[in-house]
Amino acid sequence: MKIAKNSKLVLIGDSITDGGRARPVGEGGGGALGAIYPSKVHGLLGAVYPEYKIRVVNMGCGGNTVRDLQARWQTDVLDLQPDWLGVMIGINDVWRQFDRPLQREIHVPLPEYRATLEKLVQTTRPRLQGLVLLSPYLIEPNRREPMRRMMDEYGAAVRELAAKYDAIFVDVQAEFDRLLQHLHPMSIAWDRVHPDVVGETLIARAFLRAVDFEF
Amino acid sequence: MKIAKNSKLVLIGDSITDGGRARPVGEGGGGALGAIYPSKVHGLLGAVYPEYKIRVVNMGCGGNTVRDLQARWQTDVLDLQPDWLGVMIGINDVWRQFDRPLQREIHVPLPEYRATLEKLVQTTRPRLQGLVLLSPYLIEPNRREPMRRMMDEYGAAVRELAAKYDAIFVDVQAEFDRLLQHLHPMSIAWDRVHPDVVGETLIARAFLRAVDFEF
Amino acid sequence: MKIAKNSKLVLIGDSITDGGRARPVGEGGGGALGAIYPSKVHGLLGAVYPEYKIRVVNMGCGGNTVRDLQARWQTDVLDLQPDWLGVMIGINDVWRQFDRPLQREIHVPLPEYRATLEKLVQTTRPRLQGLVLLSPYLIEPNRREPMRRMMDEYGAAVRELAAKYDAIFVDVQAEFDRLLQHLHPMSIAWDRVHPDVVGETLIARAFLRAVDFEF
Amino acid sequence: MKIAKNSKLVLIGDSITDGGRARPVGEGGGGALGAIYPSKVHGLLGAVYPEYKIRVVNMGCGGNTVRDLQARWQTDVLDLQPDWLGVMIGINDVWRQFDRPLQREIHVPLPEYRATLEKLVQTTRPRLQGLVLLSPYLIEPNRREPMRRMMDEYGAAVRELAAKYDAIFVDVQAEFDRLLQHLHPMSIAWDRVHPDVVGETLIARAFLRAVDFEF
Amino acid sequence: MKIAKNSKLVLIGDSITDGGRARPVGEGGGGALGAIYPSKVHGLLGAVYPEYKIRVVNMGCGGNTVRDLQARWQTDVLDLQPDWLGVMIGINDVWRQFDRPLQREIHVPLPEYRATLEKLVQTTRPRLQGLVLLSPYLIEPNRREPMRRMMDEYGAAVRELAAKYDAIFVDVQAEFDRLLQHLHPMSIAWDRVHPDVVGETLIARAFLRAVDFEF
Amino acid sequence: MKIAKNSKLVLIGDSITDGGRARPVGEGGGGALGAIYPSKVHGLLGAVYPEYKIRVVNMGCGGNTVRDLQARWQTDVLDLQPDWLGVMIGINDVWRQFDRPLQREIHVPLPEYRATLEKLVQTTRPRLQGLVLLSPYLIEPNRREPMRRMMDEYGAAVRELAAKYDAIFVDVQAEFDRLLQHLHPMSIAWDRVHPDVVGETLIARAFLRAVDFEF
Amino acid sequence: MKIAKNSKLVLIGDSITDGGRARPVGEGGGGALGAIYPSKVHGLLGAVYPEYKIRVVNMGCGGNTVRDLQARWQTDVLDLQPDWLGVMIGINDVWRQFDRPLQREIHVPLPEYRATLEKLVQTTRPRLQGLVLLSPYLIEPNRREPMRRMMDEYGAAVRELAAKYDAIFVDVQAEFDRLLQHLHPMSIAWDRVHPDVVGETLIARAFLRAVDFEF
Amino acid sequence: MKIAKNSKLVLIGDSITDGGRARPVGEGGGGALGAIYPSKVHGLLGAVYPEYKIRVVNMGCGGNTVRDLQARWQTDVLDLQPDWLGVMIGINDVWRQFDRPLQREIHVPLPEYRATLEKLVQTTRPRLQGLVLLSPYLIEPNRREPMRRMMDEYGAAVRELAAKYDAIFVDVQAEFDRLLQHLHPMSIAWDRVHPDVVGETLIARAFLRAVDFEF
Repeated sequence: MKIAKNSKLVLIGDSITDGGRARPVGEGGGGALGAIYPSKVHGLLGAVYPEYKIRVVNMGCGGNTVRDLQARWQTDVLDLQPDWLGVMIGINDVWRQFDRPLQREIHVPLPEYRATLEKLVQTTRPRLQGLVLLSPYLIEPNRREPMRRMMDEYGAAVRELAAKYDAIFVDVQAEFDRLLQHLHPMSIAWDRVHPDVVGETLIARAFLRAVDFEF
Repeated sequence: MKIAKNSKLVLIGDSITDGGRARPVGEGGGGALGAIYPSKVHGLLGAVYPEYKIRVVNMGCGGNTVRDLQARWQTDVLDLQPDWLGVMIGINDVWRQFDRPLQREIHVPLPEYRATLEKLVQTTRPRLQGLVLLSPYLIEPNRREPMRRMMDEYGAAVRELAAKYDAIFVDVQAEFDRLLQHLHPMSIAWDRVHPDVVGETLIARAFLRAVDFEF
Repeated sequence: MKIAKNSKLVLIGDSITDGGRARPVGEGGGGALGAIYPSKVHGLLGAVYPEYKIRVVNMGCGGNTVRDLQARWQTDVLDLQPDWLGVMIGINDVWRQFDRPLQREIHVPLPEYRATLEKLVQTTRPRLQGLVLLSPYLIEPNRREPMRRMMDEYGAAVRELAAKYDAIFVDVQAEFDRLLQHLHPMSIAWDRVHPDVVGETLIARAFLRAVDFEF
Repeated sequence: MKIAKNSKLVLIGDSITDGGRARPVGEGGGGALGAIYPSKVHGLLGAVYPEYKIRVVNMGCGGNTVRDLQARWQTDVLDLQPDWLGVMIGINDVWRQFDRPLQREIHVPLPEYRATLEKLVQTTRPRLQGLVLLSPYLIEPNRREPMRRMMDEYGAAVRELAAKYDAIFVDVQAEFDRLLQHLHPMSIAWDRVHPDVVGETLIARAFLRAVDFEF
Repeated sequence: MKIAKNSKLVLIGDSITDGGRARPVGEGGGGALGAIYPSKVHGLLGAVYPEYKIRVVNMGCGGNTVRDLQARWQTDVLDLQPDWLGVMIGINDVWRQFDRPLQREIHVPLPEYRATLEKLVQTTRPRLQGLVLLSPYLIEPNRREPMRRMMDEYGAAVRELAAKYDAIFVDVQAEFDRLLQHLHPMSIAWDRVHPDVVGETLIARAFLRAVDFEF
Repeated sequence: MKIAKNSKLVLIGDSITDGGRARPVGEGGGGALGAIYPSKVHGLLGAVYPEYKIRVVNMGCGGNTVRDLQARWQTDVLDLQPDWLGVMIGINDVWRQFDRPLQREIHVPLPEYRATLEKLVQTTRPRLQGLVLLSPYLIEPNRREPMRRMMDEYGAAVRELAAKYDAIFVDVQAEFDRLLQHLHPMSIAWDRVHPDVVGETLIARAFLRAVDFEF
Repeated sequence: MKIAKNSKLVLIGDSITDGGRARPVGEGGGGALGAIYPSKVHGLLGAVYPEYKIRVVNMGCGGNTVRDLQARWQTDVLDLQPDWLGVMIGINDVWRQFDRPLQREIHVPLPEYRATLEKLVQTTRPRLQGLVLLSPYLIEPNRREPMRRMMDEYGAAVRELAAKYDAIFVDVQAEFDRLLQHLHPMSIAWDRVHPDVVGETLIARAFLRAVDFEF
Repeated sequence: MKIAKNSKLVLIGDSITDGGRARPVGEGGGGALGAIYPSKVHGLLGAVYPEYKIRVVNMGCGGNTVRDLQARWQTDVLDLQPDWLGVMIGINDVWRQFDRPLQREIHVPLPEYRATLEKLVQTTRPRLQGLVLLSPYLIEPNRREPMRRMMDEYGAAVRELAAKYDAIFVDVQAEFDRLLQHLHPMSIAWDRVHPDVVGETLIARAFLRAVDFEF
């Protein structure tokens, strides 16, 4: 597995990462890691590789855009001195343009999204042993659907940044697309964003496979 | 307006009708009518036609299919002796086939849906001054989307029954389609089913226009 | 309709406006607009004129007098940069003189009411495309009843200010008077102030008709 | 004082009597007597005539009409074997005709009110040392106001029954009329029915003066 | 009655006064006056002398000693500019010496009690139309009981200060002693301090009789 | 120690025994034994005599008189098949005569108390290895105080029954009297009945010394 | 994978299975599957084999012993007509013998455990496509520890029954033993029974590997 | 007994001391002392030696290590001016190394533990009449178990400091070891740390015997 023994892995993002984690830092037992994808990453790492002793820290915050990540990057990423970092951001950057179209001041357009994320990645990559960038996604099979289309553009930006800055890219959208060959979106997530336990596991598995985890 | 003075109007259906109404009978002040479409029908009738003194009674139950309506039809419709009746049912009949595809025992397929609804309509129509049948809907503009396609078939059944039994048909789906020319589904309902206040108003307005209400 | 496309409409006032809106700013889904008159304005605008894309923002605060409006005018009106503004204030200015007659320090007598409201209107009107002033009211048919009589005087002041500063005047009292020809006050509001859903709809409808909204 | 030592006094009625009393029987400490008029009767009797050792029992139920009293008369009056009985009923019998005018099935018209109350009084008077009948009331000074006018008719029926069956009549309406010479209804009760502590005390005092209590 | 029309009466003290009053100032409806003696004073004043229009303000705080009163005297008495002031303090000054004998730092011995109370009375009396000093008490008939004996000494200090500074003295202890001729302490207050509604009424009545209130 | 290894000890009584125990049977961890005297008996037995493996079961019920014990004796004592039984009852039998003097139907006079308790003891003693009868008490040093005087009479009845039926008598009143030589009742129990942790420990210690427990 | 497409898999057991599942049947979204091992089985099956469309139903009940399973076997297993069944029972059968040693009536000794489980397995196996029996466990590395030693005996009984009745045996204890080579029990479960997310994942993974699931 | 009359005894530590005590200072009735060992010390001192009038103050804080004690030593020990002081600390210092092995920043290794505790003891001993140091413990009979082994090392450090600074050493671990000859750890504490009432009593008894308390 790519993550070395005794590493510290920080996962940051929006509600898909958060899952009710503890504040200010989501680490340790008693539900501190939240209930969803980071907790599943931790559970699988711990069950299969107990001798690796990897610290998993959840720093997701529901509703966040990349603009919010930037504002709390120093305390919530850099100060924690991670060895590995996982970032999944962008869903809210896109979603607000569709569910609150009139409140333009809370939209994060693609150029700002790309530039902000690049700045964070650029600054932080040298301090890390490994960086994982996960694509945002919409659980919608129709790629011409407007929100799916825009989400794909944001995802493409993530893919480019990953390539440019030596990060591992996890194509979460592709994972859901695979699932959607067998399932209707309504059976995964009523709102096409917050998945059930199958979707949460899908994300965790995609993350782990990207770092050569073997089950 | 078609509804005569001193009439009693019962509205029955699923969560789109329910809206947290009082039990066992949703009539009177203090939120007894629930918070959504029936309350808006009542508010507009009362504000514009106060001299009509129409009783509005909300008998919706969240999660209901037509199978559930049948089970409570005697107490929840016939015993109340309505002059006018509004029925909007079918969303859950379809939805369960998509969000819980494996639990087939809770699906209501189209033939059962049509037959059950017809039986209720056939029995009840003679006792009524007027009957309004509202189509089920999905807030999704793509008519080839599988759940939308199936919903349209259920809606077509409602339309046919309305024609056959001298009922007024309200095409709620067409109303949402008009809205979707200007809005993305995410800005109306995250789950494409439970609309925000704009969608609730849209249903109430469609109902009222169908009975020649003038604003 | 008088309100242009893409306008921002702010509604400010007391509990008749508030209805449990979100703080600090009442805009967006999930009940942020509160449950009463502004939400009904928003619902009707959105359902009938979806292509207008009008932002409705609720800034009501329960218990407010015009003295309270003045204290929060900068943050709660001017900083939001509305295109249209609706103001309904005065009920508490009068009410406190009747329900807490001994606590004179919380009364707002007519001269102060008129002067304060005029100052707010005078300053703000030039920045607006449209201003709607709604009269305060008491749901009491007897115009010689002392509180009704005083409320009418406050309402007359609003009417004068509307005329003087090119604002649209909405005579909410007259609307309730029309309703009272058919209904006893007890069936609209136990306290003759906070109406049921019929009364809330009445206010929203009066507002909308004043801006040439067509149903 | 008319009430003899060691008597048991039961007070029955609607929410004006109830005040959150204990169930099934409202007697004893810890708030069991409720918070309003019966508790004030008990407090004054105990403070001024401690040597009389009078048991006060509150059997009020919020929302009750005389129809409800009849249904629970055996268990809630006769089984308790009172020496003295106080009855204040009628407000809801009238009120429902005004606040829920369309739900005629819950109205109690004057003939039914009078006949039912008479039957209860007739049966019970012989078992009592004393019976006090308190008039229903509306905290509204205008006697031509329709609900006040009807309330006065119900009150007149109580007065007649009191005379016919040797009961003490307490004119609560007259007491409030005296108060209304100095106060606006809004300062006593927003809904003109449920008074503040001044009004509760007024009722208790009227009751006590009627039985020759001396302060 | 001694209290003139349009006066403001402030009542300050410990839990016997407090009764769950509103903070920061206990005045107005909705339970703001608390549930016990001040509310009963207000109820009787309002019911019997409505034309006097007396403001009653409750400033009691549970657990207070005279040391606590001194600390909040400026904001809680002087700033409110009362015409009449009622003070009942001393129970906790004594009680802590008996229920927490080892925590001497929270005891208020008699000399400090007398000196502090005198300072408050001396400063405040000139600003008042009338001052009422109520004795502390213990609901215990045995005057040789140690806590009763000490309470009597504190009460004697209050009586002396009343005489010296032209205040009305209300001997609440004597009132309870009269009650105790007929009742065992357990039927008034399990802890011999916080009375039931009879005791609360007794205090209110004693206060009112001292200002020549007529029932 | 008198209680043999592997015995089952049931403690029954009123609120002094209850202490929030689990229902229907108060045995085991997690607070099932309640918070007061039985839990302290259990704690000391377990800490000092762990090898005895004595089951302690708490069957106290707050507010009980001996009349209540009789009603539940079969299920709450006999069915549990105790080896040892502790009974402390009588406080409420006396107390109700003082705190609710007018509600005579809930008083348990001495003859009934003695006869009922005797019947329970007589029937049960033969099935037991040991029976402990604890006196009721009042935390009041003055033996001429009326409630203390009556409590002493009830306690004397317990002492006589203990002697007659070969039970161990625990004089809890004497224990509190010893404490009262150094402490005022207010520092043990505001209501002279429900003691603080010192008093609870006192009862447990008295019980244990009576069965020759050595610390 | 051994489990065929379109199978229904029921998991029954104690709190390790339960995890707050829905009642009466734990199936579907919204947390109905509970939060622990069955939910993880479902998540992994769904994410990796979406085309298998396997129904997972959680029927665990916290605190259950095999005696409790027997009592609810008809409704909670047979009536649900599973294709595959997973059973993990025995922890409480053992635990009660250690944490409540004196309450022998709630202990389930090994012979009863074995016989009862055999009866359930024997009856049910013929109706199933596959049966998985999971061993009970204690998260304690020392095999001579008394509770671990007894747990191993119960586990051995499960292993024997699996062999005898053609069931798949999952050695959960062996899985935890592997983990304990790297971790102290305190970091997995404070009580050595209810594991953190790592332990829950461990059980789910062991189950899945036993049915030839591939990650 | 070693503790003199009128002494003040402060007990400080972690959750074993805390037990839900009042903040900021745990002294007095109403549960202020918490529910566990300090409350039991207080109860036994008060019941057996009422004439000693010893103040017991609980300053435990759940989760504390010696590092936390140091941070609050001034306000929570020195400012309270105790005559006697009891300190039980170290369980969390050890536990975190086993239940959160990866979060090394919250571990308190033995050298730091010893040095910090010594500094506190050294500074404080001269101000005290008596100092009691209680050993940390693990309710685990196997002394080779790693956490037990480390706990014994921390306990040995406490023993040495006690000897060096004239403090009384209470070997709580030895007390639990005696209990464990008869009981399995699961019957005392599921987590081997927080004992049931028997264990709480054991600690209190050990403390009291160390100061020559006689039952």
